[in-house]
Amino acid sequence: MKNPKSFVEKWKRDGGIVVHLTMYGLPIDNVIDRINSENKKILIIVGSEKVEGWFYYNSDYNIAIGNQPHSEVAALAIFLDRIYKGGELNIQFSDAKLSIIPQEKGKKVIKNE
Amino acid sequence: MKNPKSFVEKWKRDGGIVVHLTMYGLPIDNVIDRINSENKKILIIVGSEKVEGWFYYNSDYNIAIGNQPHSEVAALAIFLDRIYKGGELNIQFSDAKLSIIPQEKGKKVIKNE
Repeated sequence: MKNPKSFVEKWKRDGGIVVHLTMYGLPIDNVIDRINSENKKILIIVGSEKVEGWFYYNSDYNIAIGNQPHSEVAALAIFLDRIYKGGELNIQFSDAKLSIIPQEKGKKVIKNE
Repeated sequence: MKNPKSFVEKWKRDGGIVVHLTMYGLPIDNVIDRINSENKKILIIVGSEKVEGWFYYNSDYNIAIGNQPHSEVAALAIFLDRIYKGGELNIQFSDAKLSIIPQEKGKKVIKNE
């Protein structure tokens, strides 16, 4: 993305909220209900090594998935899991070409015609 | 690890259980209570591109964190989150040299003497 700051600004102007995942933020369990009740589209910022202060001050929520250093991928996974209340694990894609049939052992995949 | 198969075998001989995270397995929500009630130490296998069939047949549980291709790190995060029932987010280390104080904006870190 060429200009992430103007992207954030436009997102907010268009009525969305901005969530920045950072170990310095507020515990997710304390704010998740508030975020869900806003019922707005969410832009999620997941930083890597160095995130400019600007993003802390222009995000609507700075949220910690635990106040420890952690994997950004793991933080994103837990955040989405809380947003979807676990329902993301059961999502089926109506246009899927392949479907996995859960198995105790081994693999079973079917082709959808 | 030089010999992962004998590691798995020894783990089971020593009374532990083996959980293999794979999109081909059973939905986690269906088996998490059973795993927790076993109350045994857990070896978690998280495969990358190609996992030998041996591990499917020698794991006690093949578990899917959603039956879709996904990040292994994300799958591990969700599995641990289910095992700890979300409590992992509040873990404090008694010997921590630094502690993060959650903030709405910005960063606050204190040194523990």
